Amino acid sequence: MGLIVQKFGGTSVANTERLKNVAKIVTDTYKAGNGVIVVVSAQGDTTDDLIEKAREVNTNPSKREMDMLLSTGEQISASLLAMTIESMGFPVISLTGWQAGIATDSNYSASRIKKIDTERLSAELDKKRIVIVTGFQGLNKYDDITTLGRGGSDTSAVALAAACHADLCEIYTDVDGVYTTDPRIVPDAKKLSEISFDEMLELASLGANVLHNRSVEMAKKYNVNMCVRSSITRAEGTFVKEVVNMESMVVRGVTKDNDVARISLCHIEDTPGKAFRIFSLLAKYNINVDLIIQSIGRENTKDISFTVSEGNLKEALDLIENNKDLIGYGELSYNTEVSKVSIVGAGMVTNAGVAAKMFEALYDAHINIHMIATSEIKVSVLIDQGMENKAIKAIHDKFELA
Amino acid sequence: MGLIVQKFGGTSVANTERLKNVAKIVTDTYKAGNGVIVVVSAQGDTTDDLIEKAREVNTNPSKREMDMLLSTGEQISASLLAMTIESMGFPVISLTGWQAGIATDSNYSASRIKKIDTERLSAELDKKRIVIVTGFQGLNKYDDITTLGRGGSDTSAVALAAACHADLCEIYTDVDGVYTTDPRIVPDAKKLSEISFDEMLELASLGANVLHNRSVEMAKKYNVNMCVRSSITRAEGTFVKEVVNMESMVVRGVTKDNDVARISLCHIEDTPGKAFRIFSLLAKYNINVDLIIQSIGRENTKDISFTVSEGNLKEALDLIENNKDLIGYGELSYNTEVSKVSIVGAGMVTNAGVAAKMFEALYDAHINIHMIATSEIKVSVLIDQGMENKAIKAIHDKFELA
Repeated sequence: MGLIVQKFGGTSVANTERLKNVAKIVTDTYKAGNGVIVVVSAQGDTTDDLIEKAREVNTNPSKREMDMLLSTGEQISASLLAMTIESMGFPVISLTGWQAGIATDSNYSASRIKKIDTERLSAELDKKRIVIVTGFQGLNKYDDITTLGRGGSDTSAVALAAACHADLCEIYTDVDGVYTTDPRIVPDAKKLSEISFDEMLELASLGANVLHNRSVEMAKKYNVNMCVRSSITRAEGTFVKEVVNMESMVVRGVTKDNDVARISLCHIEDTPGKAFRIFSLLAKYNINVDLIIQSIGRENTKDISFTVSEGNLKEALDLIENNKDLIGYGELSYNTEVSKVSIVGAGMVTNAGVAAKMFEALYDAHINIHMIATSEIKVSVLIDQGMENKAIKAIHDKFELA
Repeated sequence: MGLIVQKFGGTSVANTERLKNVAKIVTDTYKAGNGVIVVVSAQGDTTDDLIEKAREVNTNPSKREMDMLLSTGEQISASLLAMTIESMGFPVISLTGWQAGIATDSNYSASRIKKIDTERLSAELDKKRIVIVTGFQGLNKYDDITTLGRGGSDTSAVALAAACHADLCEIYTDVDGVYTTDPRIVPDAKKLSEISFDEMLELASLGANVLHNRSVEMAKKYNVNMCVRSSITRAEGTFVKEVVNMESMVVRGVTKDNDVARISLCHIEDTPGKAFRIFSLLAKYNINVDLIIQSIGRENTKDISFTVSEGNLKEALDLIENNKDLIGYGELSYNTEVSKVSIVGAGMVTNAGVAAKMFEALYDAHINIHMIATSEIKVSVLIDQGMENKAIKAIHDKFELA
């Protein structure tokens, strides 16, 4: 008995049969005495179809009009789900992002939620209605429709859960939880019953595609209890929360990311402010930098290597070359044939030797390590692309995660 | 140089090529120095496709959710048209009904526009932007999306023209104007260069499908200059306005309506209040009655005949039978094998013998007349179905409308 937010992705609402499946989950939750807010994405390929339509008339449409166009996708799935629930005899209403009071900044196609005015939502919940809200969208100060960009519907769900003080935010997806590593690579990977926000954040940013980082960040900020579960199996799923059982495994999961490129600047003059210049330059152009290593080079110089996503590689290289005089380096090189493999776990910080154990697993598997970066709860290594699955298996076995 | 509202139907925006055609018309108008507000319907079959999707999940969805669903159709075409115009380098913005300030009553799926707050529209026009507005929809007092029902986009266009004091409201369609009669029946039918609101209203209510009555009523009420023209030929079209050149033809047009059924009640007791009872009963159930004739029957009784649309026939008959005691009649009969043929023209009222000339044309063509009804600007007759095209030709010739 409480208030539960349930989010369903595009695959879960793709057709009539799936809509009925979702309606069953929602109404079961409602029948159990809970208030229910449902957040939906656009059906299956709807968003891609709309993007294609736009491309036909304009290869470079304004983001403002794209948001106007794309936001219809969620409006369609929200009203169809409401009708499905109506047909089962339950009180229900669908609301667009703006009807649900979701106010965003004005950054079209990648906006952020600023606040949620819950007046309408509360009124509908008070009427004992199931409330369906379109994910992925809101309204900016100009009264224009905005979309939240990638992972937007997860973020909508968490934001609504936070604003309405929901007891739980369930993210329904096509996997039944968060695993110690990708079960397609390691068949005996184990489903986690719970994971902390920080661990989930590291896993998400390291390539696990279960939850989008933004939604986890928001859940952490407002301490929203989240749960990842499958709309098909309806199994228990994985709970994401602030504090998890500390008796649990030291290493929570192993993950990989192939969308990574290494950039190296060699023979940088060893004077203060060099690193600052490089990374503030990249930050100015919104290029996210991941692993960073600075090493001593020859003859009073140093070398700096770091990784960016492959999509940002060209822009990053251009920026560095165009600012060669400002930065002052000898040689610029890059490599896209690399892969990042990481272990994550809140227990690491208090357990000595975790990193060493990971390196040992890689050594045993004859895998060479190019770069290493560590934080309190993760260790990442850069290795040759093609070796990542072998690395994951070796690490998973070493830590006995199965 | 002025402010022009242009409305384009679903066929006109059905695909990329047609969107480009519409964009050309709009930008030509803009380049001529005019402010332009464009009203669009949903693309081609979009609305039907959405209705089908709804049917799959619920055979009887609520009108509120249907409006939520269907309103996406215009939002898609409005944003796509905006992108098309963007690609041609013109400043443009698309607005939903609620963004355009269109407030309606709460009658979902058949709502009426109550008022338009033009603040946003004016601001966009002041920025010299072409403004695209979704037709067919608005927002009610609960902040819910409503749709205007049949002919809704025409009504949106006229309402916006009235609210913004536009100089002209152009309704683009697939015919190039209003004709003296259907050119498919009478090949030498003539296009009218202008027609009065009253004449257009009679023509529309008598079966001419060019403009929906509601839009003409609103144009008359707010004295909006309208023009019906083709988005393909871009020919001059027909102007609809308050006062038209009185030198023009006495009879403006000939039209037919096959969606009509005759109901007759015979042997009604000849006491006051009988007609009132019948027609207030039908009005209570929203059944529109058209031609009404009352005649003297036998033995101090009277007969009353009237026509309704075929869709209302069964309900009307049921109502009358269930209230037989209240009304007090002897016999109830009906006939669906009838057709209504009408002539319309503001000049009739000052020209004697117009009706007689019409009857003569029908007599010459050996067509029997079942019922006759006249108003100041029209004469309608009910004849056997199947004879209507012959009747139209005969009348068109008699009045030399070609």
